Amino acid sequence: MLNVGVIGCGGMGRDHISRLTNKIQGAQVVAVCDVFEESAKKAASICNAKVYTDEKLLINDPDVDAVFIVSPGFAHVEALLEAIQAGKRIFCEKPLCTTAEDCLKVVQAEVASGKHLIQLGFMRRYDVGYAKVKEALLSGEYGEPLMLHCTHRNPEVGTNYNTPMAVHDTAIHEIDVLHWLVDDEYESAQVIMPRVTKYSHSELKDPQIMLLRTKKGVCIDVEVFVNCKFGYDINCEVVCEDGAIKMPMATVYPTIRKNASVSTTIDTDCFVRFKDAYDAEVQAWVDDAAKGEINGPNAWDGYLAAITADALVKAQQTGAIEKINAAVEKPDFYNK
Amino acid sequence: MLNVGVIGCGGMGRDHISRLTNKIQGAQVVAVCDVFEESAKKAASICNAKVYTDEKLLINDPDVDAVFIVSPGFAHVEALLEAIQAGKRIFCEKPLCTTAEDCLKVVQAEVASGKHLIQLGFMRRYDVGYAKVKEALLSGEYGEPLMLHCTHRNPEVGTNYNTPMAVHDTAIHEIDVLHWLVDDEYESAQVIMPRVTKYSHSELKDPQIMLLRTKKGVCIDVEVFVNCKFGYDINCEVVCEDGAIKMPMATVYPTIRKNASVSTTIDTDCFVRFKDAYDAEVQAWVDDAAKGEINGPNAWDGYLAAITADALVKAQQTGAIEKINAAVEKPDFYNK
Amino acid sequence: MLNVGVIGCGGMGRDHISRLTNKIQGAQVVAVCDVFEESAKKAASICNAKVYTDEKLLINDPDVDAVFIVSPGFAHVEALLEAIQAGKRIFCEKPLCTTAEDCLKVVQAEVASGKHLIQLGFMRRYDVGYAKVKEALLSGEYGEPLMLHCTHRNPEVGTNYNTPMAVHDTAIHEIDVLHWLVDDEYESAQVIMPRVTKYSHSELKDPQIMLLRTKKGVCIDVEVFVNCKFGYDINCEVVCEDGAIKMPMATVYPTIRKNASVSTTIDTDCFVRFKDAYDAEVQAWVDDAAKGEINGPNAWDGYLAAITADALVKAQQTGAIEKINAAVEKPDFYNK
Amino acid sequence: MLNVGVIGCGGMGRDHISRLTNKIQGAQVVAVCDVFEESAKKAASICNAKVYTDEKLLINDPDVDAVFIVSPGFAHVEALLEAIQAGKRIFCEKPLCTTAEDCLKVVQAEVASGKHLIQLGFMRRYDVGYAKVKEALLSGEYGEPLMLHCTHRNPEVGTNYNTPMAVHDTAIHEIDVLHWLVDDEYESAQVIMPRVTKYSHSELKDPQIMLLRTKKGVCIDVEVFVNCKFGYDINCEVVCEDGAIKMPMATVYPTIRKNASVSTTIDTDCFVRFKDAYDAEVQAWVDDAAKGEINGPNAWDGYLAAITADALVKAQQTGAIEKINAAVEKPDFYNK
Repeated sequence: MLNVGVIGCGGMGRDHISRLTNKIQGAQVVAVCDVFEESAKKAASICNAKVYTDEKLLINDPDVDAVFIVSPGFAHVEALLEAIQAGKRIFCEKPLCTTAEDCLKVVQAEVASGKHLIQLGFMRRYDVGYAKVKEALLSGEYGEPLMLHCTHRNPEVGTNYNTPMAVHDTAIHEIDVLHWLVDDEYESAQVIMPRVTKYSHSELKDPQIMLLRTKKGVCIDVEVFVNCKFGYDINCEVVCEDGAIKMPMATVYPTIRKNASVSTTIDTDCFVRFKDAYDAEVQAWVDDAAKGEINGPNAWDGYLAAITADALVKAQQTGAIEKINAAVEKPDFYNK
Repeated sequence: MLNVGVIGCGGMGRDHISRLTNKIQGAQVVAVCDVFEESAKKAASICNAKVYTDEKLLINDPDVDAVFIVSPGFAHVEALLEAIQAGKRIFCEKPLCTTAEDCLKVVQAEVASGKHLIQLGFMRRYDVGYAKVKEALLSGEYGEPLMLHCTHRNPEVGTNYNTPMAVHDTAIHEIDVLHWLVDDEYESAQVIMPRVTKYSHSELKDPQIMLLRTKKGVCIDVEVFVNCKFGYDINCEVVCEDGAIKMPMATVYPTIRKNASVSTTIDTDCFVRFKDAYDAEVQAWVDDAAKGEINGPNAWDGYLAAITADALVKAQQTGAIEKINAAVEKPDFYNK
Repeated sequence: MLNVGVIGCGGMGRDHISRLTNKIQGAQVVAVCDVFEESAKKAASICNAKVYTDEKLLINDPDVDAVFIVSPGFAHVEALLEAIQAGKRIFCEKPLCTTAEDCLKVVQAEVASGKHLIQLGFMRRYDVGYAKVKEALLSGEYGEPLMLHCTHRNPEVGTNYNTPMAVHDTAIHEIDVLHWLVDDEYESAQVIMPRVTKYSHSELKDPQIMLLRTKKGVCIDVEVFVNCKFGYDINCEVVCEDGAIKMPMATVYPTIRKNASVSTTIDTDCFVRFKDAYDAEVQAWVDDAAKGEINGPNAWDGYLAAITADALVKAQQTGAIEKINAAVEKPDFYNK
Repeated sequence: MLNVGVIGCGGMGRDHISRLTNKIQGAQVVAVCDVFEESAKKAASICNAKVYTDEKLLINDPDVDAVFIVSPGFAHVEALLEAIQAGKRIFCEKPLCTTAEDCLKVVQAEVASGKHLIQLGFMRRYDVGYAKVKEALLSGEYGEPLMLHCTHRNPEVGTNYNTPMAVHDTAIHEIDVLHWLVDDEYESAQVIMPRVTKYSHSELKDPQIMLLRTKKGVCIDVEVFVNCKFGYDINCEVVCEDGAIKMPMATVYPTIRKNASVSTTIDTDCFVRFKDAYDAEVQAWVDDAAKGEINGPNAWDGYLAAITADALVKAQQTGAIEKINAAVEKPDFYNK
């Protein structure tokens, strides 16, 4: 049984606590922490756990085998460094940290610790849709991948959502999952800005088309359209030398004949679309813990996501093709 | 150039006159006839043709090479017999005649004449959807057909439409096209009466499921649902020993994403769904005329449709499995 | 924690033991039983449980809260009656018993006990595909159901599979799930025997079309085709007064473009197609146990399945429409 | 009856002669011309027409009402100028001319003539798929178009096909049809070069992603992949403010269940995919001639295609975003 301490008891934190308590085999939440004691207590009531308001105490609690970080992104770096020092296994919700520098600091601390500790919460790697595409790619039946055509569409976003958030909050999922899908790394980024939808506002260019090129020359286009109105619509087509593979949706709906139309429902909520992926990533992390392994996205992936996001945000402003270069070479530690 | 005389100048008649005049290569309408002179004159204005009110005069007009019968069904038998006697080629809209006896009379007159003269207006044999299914069946890739699952759905029908019309006006198309599709003849018929839709009335059992068995043992189910509300929805799946083949629609519509739904239009009008089939059957008849051939549905097919319809109407009343037996053996004349 | 004793340690038994041990929250296997001690021991090694060869001892073991019956069908009746007498909660794999008489005996014993104890292993009620169709039906948007068109296709079956097994081993799933889907009971059954596929043998008429009518007049056709070669293909379309609803598959596969073809995989294995349904039914049974409820298919459903299967087997032989009548009225006990 | 003289009797020329002779209403081929007399004679045998080897004589033949230019692209400019001078109506296969300068010369000659004479053979505007998308756009239901995602995939090309031909021979169709579809003009072009498929050679970068921006800010991406192996696969999705519209294929194929797969055929031949569009464009041109109109793509569209192609070819080399500027303002003459 893996005894988990959860840091951050907001909506997403409580969701993970409930998941760990009611759905996941082999783990239990033994401690929760939030700077707001009321939030921590509310969360603790789900799982009957100890309550902390100081994350350092939770991290160093000997009853806690593993730390689950769901606090706001800016607070991740401190919790991560403390937990590495304590030698605790870590599940950290995305982003790893909010700057590439902090990500690198965490990478270096983990490498220095000599132990693989961190898994990052990029749940799409656990989605059955991407998994089936990856399986097809690995089968060798389709040759090398050449292009990826993707969409990340949301029905709508709040008025505080602005242009860079199209990278940090939205495309960040594609940034992680796509290079993993084709087993490659990014080399450059560009952003194209189409005419803005009438549903956007002055601080948000919506939609955007983000172009990424990998080191092997795979060219990726991702339509990011966060006020598309019609649904939460995640698509990914991989065009290979010997065929093209289009990802299925993980959710299934009946086909309806009504009103001179044959139709199927399209998701409108990312937590519905990726519900099973959230469960699967946490279950895999728990299962891997028993074997002392980290097989999901790691701290280096978190660093790569950060520098790729930085390049895309720069490209949003320049309109040019921006290079993506890691400040250090990939530590051998991550080439397991 | 095939000089055509058209008998019957109602809506369907004018539609065929317009088709022969504006779309079909190698034919022209030189005479039209209707018992209502005004109708005939109106139709003649489409094609600049001679006007008759007596069909015998039209049939025997030496300028008329071929007769196109679009008069009401009850009037077909007389026109057919007259035209056979005159040795004119004939396109006859369905039904051949309204009774099996009359159909047989026409068959025997054609056989006696020694010339293949009659093509019947079952346009579905010229639909690209059925054609592609037939092509697949003939390829041999799928083995022998075992079952056909079909639907014939209309959005709605007029209040004068009653239970037997589900056979005579609706399933009649499946009766002809399905045995042609699998190159077989019917042996027995049964009708199942589900709960009646709230949109029907006391004289109409709607929907119905019609079951046909062929001599080779192919079992066919046809859902006939003429107040289905949602569209004109013709489906046909042929389940074979080595695979199943589902007919496509001939009409194409975009796939729309809107309002949390991915949808495609479904036809609501049989003249839209089978528009190209109507054109193709008439063009084929004209082309065949130049070669002195009849390759479409013939008078014997008209007779078979009549006795099959009779068995289905009887089965609507008895609820039992009714035999389908031709009163005479198929004349060798039709085994060309 | 629900302490479960499993009776029957064959492949399906071990599968359920593994499920209860590794996937299900809130239950553990504390005892296993098989008449073959080796089988019981092998199964016990999955879950570290007590080993029995006498099911009575397992049933009456005070450490066992609930009994999970996965023995061969003919052995169910004894185990069920013993467990009812012991007042233990029961999950019984289908069939309830192999004769309608035995089913009735079990029903009467449960009623006499005054406690709802038995859930039957018809997992399809827990499949997300059927669930979505049921949800649509309950929404009221489509009016009353009138017809169901279904297929139950298997790639192939063993040579010992014969004509009645098309009912007992195959259509039995549709028998249970379809009347539940439309909240109705069966009134009559008929079986149509198409031409036999070349892949069958003298003891097996394959395919078959099974027709069921419910008390409210819903007409159901189920194509049962167990040597269809191409896949495990479960379809269900519900045609209602205001629209038609087609069940989705629960499994998702990419869309592939290759070799002049756009294609998707079709399942070939029922345990893949209904994998999640198996998990969900057992989890629901465990969750319901905590609340003292039975919400899945119950003993009366097992009796109804038995008499419906009997009518279909009779109809396979007679070719006639056979009535389906329960020997007793539905006990009030099951109208909760 | 429109009397047509056809210049150019190669494969495409004979195809058009056959079309004009056997399918099109209201036109006949009265003269054919080819520099190779044998070719001209072979073509003349299809339609029983006069034979020329000098196009000037054909153009000025008083029996010729309209000129149909199907000669090689480099030869178009002379024939066009001669036909304009003769005041003859013209159907000119794409391209208008092989250089933007020649196109402009033709535009200016037509404007100077004061008569709308030229229709260009961009048949896609007559495809039912694009037509349905345009109809949806014009309905106003989907708001303004923002992005177009397109593919132009061919199974394979000959070894003489090189990088610029991806623009001139392939994307040229999208260049014309897409700006017409959204009723807009191009502003800039970019080309992205992914990893090259193993099926290409040193003179051909394949695939390519061509990016076009219109004056209203619509951003278009076109995947051009001419050795995709799997089919002739033309896709076009228009993403609008209030929904997304995906073009259907014009060709229909059955859905096949076989070998654990549900599949549909994909076209492999552009003359199959756009067969009806070729017929429709010529019929429309003939019908428009009777009304003295040109409603299809005109000489100005030919000029725009030429300068857009030039920009794309430049962008293939520079990797930069290239401006697309017409050398002159659009003559009022074309704003009818």
